Amino acid sequence: MHKPVLIETSARHIHVTREDLDTLFGEGYRLTPKRDLSQPGQFSCEERVAVVGPSGSFPGVTILGPERPQSQVELSLSDARKIGMHVPVRESGDIAGSPGCRLVGPKGEVTLAEGVIAAKRHIHMTPADAKNYGLRDKQVVQVRYDGEGRALVFGDVVVRVREDFFLAMHIDTDESNAGRVANGASGEILAEC
Amino acid sequence: MHKPVLIETSARHIHVTREDLDTLFGEGYRLTPKRDLSQPGQFSCEERVAVVGPSGSFPGVTILGPERPQSQVELSLSDARKIGMHVPVRESGDIAGSPGCRLVGPKGEVTLAEGVIAAKRHIHMTPADAKNYGLRDKQVVQVRYDGEGRALVFGDVVVRVREDFFLAMHIDTDESNAGRVANGASGEILAEC
Repeated sequence: MHKPVLIETSARHIHVTREDLDTLFGEGYRLTPKRDLSQPGQFSCEERVAVVGPSGSFPGVTILGPERPQSQVELSLSDARKIGMHVPVRESGDIAGSPGCRLVGPKGEVTLAEGVIAAKRHIHMTPADAKNYGLRDKQVVQVRYDGEGRALVFGDVVVRVREDFFLAMHIDTDESNAGRVANGASGEILAEC
Repeated sequence: MHKPVLIETSARHIHVTREDLDTLFGEGYRLTPKRDLSQPGQFSCEERVAVVGPSGSFPGVTILGPERPQSQVELSLSDARKIGMHVPVRESGDIAGSPGCRLVGPKGEVTLAEGVIAAKRHIHMTPADAKNYGLRDKQVVQVRYDGEGRALVFGDVVVRVREDFFLAMHIDTDESNAGRVANGASGEILAEC
């Protein structure tokens, strides 16, 4: 059975708590949505913060809304290396023991004790999609993509099933460039591995 | 049969002609070898040049010696994007129709009409290695590498056979990070694809 999946590339970004948003942008500040993301309720914001590592920084990193229970910085491994950080490959939200960094906003700074990760590649889907494809939540699959001169099979791809998800695979910029993944491209889910 | 191959990551670098070296560093300048590379006769140099693209530059890009018949700039696709370039994925030396850029050295500048590429992943091996592995020059194979949380199968890997080659696969920094490839890591050649 053919199991296509849209592949979307996530550039470096951060998620912030209500409290950190207060510190960075001022008490009660409200994020300004700029563009809706494919996952319902998620959006990129006009606001930017600096992410500061031990040997470098990125001055204008996008915030993705809405606010979350934990602040989290998602970098590619190329990004992390550039600012002197060694970060683990983790699923979003799984930040225990990951390194921290400094965030600098227009009204204040936050020092995160942990929360800097490289995102583990994953596929969002609804229970109906999962049933259709014969997959289940947390299953690990492979996805094939035949980018121009750079065909790849991504292993270690985690399936995440939720009623309000939209069927899409998320990879970071290193992964996207390694496979020369085109905008709006579709990969093929192969099998459990 | 088990077909292991050392995986080496190439960061951005340039190769220069004798003529361009004269322009960049002065007439008759001799490159200063810094470190021998795995391929016999190839070496990284102390000398650095700036690679200038339409919307950015890299100030200190390593030269790999010895001189070559054509100057060539090898960037990752992340690098290329950063300086505003769209470059093809090509085998080394196959630069026809690729974009150019400006190179700036301590004594002068060179404007390349073409020569900026992302390297196509490839494996160097001797005829004896090829015979041992049942492979041939220009064959396209897959290589599996199980990086921590980022297992990958690289497709479109070109086998290059020459008497003076050393058995090693070369990938760029995007590819290395996409697979969390460790220094000194070994991949497994799977099959023709």
